[in-house]
Amino acid sequence: MKPALSKLGQCTALQPISWLMQTALTRPKLISLAAGFTDNATLPTQISKRLLSDILRSPGSGQPALQYGITAGEKNLRRLTVQHLQRMDGAGAGSKTHSPDRAMITGGSQQLLYMTLEALCDEGDIILVEDPTYFVFLSILQSRGLRARGVRLQRDGIDLAHLEAVLQRLKRSGELRRVKALYLVSYFQNPTGASTSFAKKRQALALLKKFERAAGHPIYLLEDAAYRELRFAGDDIRSALLAPGAVDRVIYTGTYSKPFAPGARVGYGILPEPLFTAVQRIKGNHDFGTANLLQQLLARALQTGLYEKHVAKIEKRYGQKAQVMKQALAEHFPSSIEIWDSNGGLYFWARLPKGISAGADSQLFRAALKNDVLYVPGELCYADDPARRKPDNEMRISYGNAGERDIREGIKRLGAVLRKHLSK
Amino acid sequence: MKPALSKLGQCTALQPISWLMQTALTRPKLISLAAGFTDNATLPTQISKRLLSDILRSPGSGQPALQYGITAGEKNLRRLTVQHLQRMDGAGAGSKTHSPDRAMITGGSQQLLYMTLEALCDEGDIILVEDPTYFVFLSILQSRGLRARGVRLQRDGIDLAHLEAVLQRLKRSGELRRVKALYLVSYFQNPTGASTSFAKKRQALALLKKFERAAGHPIYLLEDAAYRELRFAGDDIRSALLAPGAVDRVIYTGTYSKPFAPGARVGYGILPEPLFTAVQRIKGNHDFGTANLLQQLLARALQTGLYEKHVAKIEKRYGQKAQVMKQALAEHFPSSIEIWDSNGGLYFWARLPKGISAGADSQLFRAALKNDVLYVPGELCYADDPARRKPDNEMRISYGNAGERDIREGIKRLGAVLRKHLSK
Repeated sequence: MKPALSKLGQCTALQPISWLMQTALTRPKLISLAAGFTDNATLPTQISKRLLSDILRSPGSGQPALQYGITAGEKNLRRLTVQHLQRMDGAGAGSKTHSPDRAMITGGSQQLLYMTLEALCDEGDIILVEDPTYFVFLSILQSRGLRARGVRLQRDGIDLAHLEAVLQRLKRSGELRRVKALYLVSYFQNPTGASTSFAKKRQALALLKKFERAAGHPIYLLEDAAYRELRFAGDDIRSALLAPGAVDRVIYTGTYSKPFAPGARVGYGILPEPLFTAVQRIKGNHDFGTANLLQQLLARALQTGLYEKHVAKIEKRYGQKAQVMKQALAEHFPSSIEIWDSNGGLYFWARLPKGISAGADSQLFRAALKNDVLYVPGELCYADDPARRKPDNEMRISYGNAGERDIREGIKRLGAVLRKHLSK
Repeated sequence: MKPALSKLGQCTALQPISWLMQTALTRPKLISLAAGFTDNATLPTQISKRLLSDILRSPGSGQPALQYGITAGEKNLRRLTVQHLQRMDGAGAGSKTHSPDRAMITGGSQQLLYMTLEALCDEGDIILVEDPTYFVFLSILQSRGLRARGVRLQRDGIDLAHLEAVLQRLKRSGELRRVKALYLVSYFQNPTGASTSFAKKRQALALLKKFERAAGHPIYLLEDAAYRELRFAGDDIRSALLAPGAVDRVIYTGTYSKPFAPGARVGYGILPEPLFTAVQRIKGNHDFGTANLLQQLLARALQTGLYEKHVAKIEKRYGQKAQVMKQALAEHFPSSIEIWDSNGGLYFWARLPKGISAGADSQLFRAALKNDVLYVPGELCYADDPARRKPDNEMRISYGNAGERDIREGIKRLGAVLRKHLSK
């Protein structure tokens, strides 16, 4: 008897990263430069222990933390989150976009991305994405029968001329009315480490606006700032929330997972109406709101200043590790490989000469695995887009989880594999 | 410019209970017998404090608790959950249905219900539900464009003759191929407090099986056991997992939220293939897995025996409160009102004489509110089903959150309103 799965049930593929992780588990000596995990040693065990004890010590704060809460999130955490965002953005207290009423707390920013797509997109709708982009976002699109169209990525963010060309093309083909949003991983992007300048965000939003009349509905700018706080060099960039017209067109998602603790998964977002209301209702159906205990933990961390102290600490740590990787890359990688290093986040991006495949089925990938080093093939980060072939000559290399010694050894191994391969 | 919301975004309604809760907040003296919240005083603040401190004390256990984990849930918690279920079910260790490989940990059982419907149902598909049933489940159905068909509920569970009649009717109308599952809230049901006997579960499953050939696909029995452990009298009932044929047809969802702490939201389920794999992938897209810290907390609670001790304590507490409510109902409610009391859960169910409306728009509801007492109108718990009118003469009355004095006073107020209303 054939199974009764829905279309969504059938279309939801195993995430490629899951397959990579499974592979990693079978080789005990493997050095994984693939996972986007955060550094174990930096996880705030002592801070969390202290804050949770404080919360649970008295019934006055302990009971509410263990009780049901509010679907959109605890008021206090929403207020603190908006203040935090205001500080980062240098926004005045009067900023309409930075308002607790527009803030929602979720189970990581991943859940917010999922629900936003639920609220916004019907099957066949189109989301514009960076080329390449965050592959789990592509998984969601595939699962829900949505289409992605790639916009070329430069080292300072998307290529605006290409964005306009893509919008023009979609207008000509009559598909503009299916375009719902442009998705930007704007800070230390996964997978390339690239950040989008504020000027580009502003201009991208203006461009989207220009095409709205032909689309017949708003085209949102969905800014995913997951890596924003993992910044160890350079200045912070203002979010798209400060761009003209942002108040009813920009969706901003952020997270406390990566800068604080993925195991205490709390994310957040700023959403314009009518999306806020729709997502809030959807969240009611998903889970009635994120676990209060975790929300209280983050609220305390923010309120006591321990959160900021912790972030300063991990920024330093990631800065060191990135430096170690940069040096190792300079030492061991052939000079024909272009490296995008970064001022933050967890990733470097390596571009091999054209014609050399680093894909999941490539000789190179197999040789790396045989030599006990794992990277994420860049091709996994490209949307299915009929307008171009997926490049397969790139690698995402992470210094997030590996220790300094493993970073050096991993890059050395990978470099040796590359030298051998490129000399053929 | 018209908004760009998806069909789902537009169809997701405000949960009626949210509206009730909002109403409650505007009346400070109101006694709410509406909320399905658990009793604040019973929340395990001290146990949680101790266990979290134990987890976070050493890096060996603290770091993994704050790191990403496995999408389907931590191995240890899945094993402990299955053992816990085996104990309740009196199942042998060799039971194929009770296997950690089939167990998934989620953000409350609510999330599992949501994802199961995602994996199983396309727009227009039909789920058979108890009449009445859990209203948030109905919200999900509505949101996703699914249809519910009601099966009459008796005090020992669904009316099997009516289940067969409904299936026959759907077969005749050619709609059987859209039927994907029967949803049973089988223990101390929300809203009626009724439990389904094991014999009925077994027979229901056999009935579904009988209609599968005509449906052309499996028809699942989705057993929601959210209230199972809030049992203060009578014996536990075996789950449908023990019924013949359960191994590839029964989906079982349970939760640690209600018996332990809603603020440390952890639920779980047992799913047959290919549903397990589909839901696991969907969960990967939702959130990569439930927060590890909460999973570790529950694992410790189970492992140390503190969980069972806590459950014994709250069972006693709810038993007392139910007793208080029962006495108050006997004293204050007119004898023409039929009361379904219960051996567990959080609810009593009151059925007024036919023709008397207790609905959200009724005089009675408004009079109750004016007298500062809130109940859940029973009509909110009925699916939209063209085969019958929604009964509106019922009320769900909860002793979950209110203290003993408020239960007495609330029932007294409600009784006075009812007496006045019925004497008209």
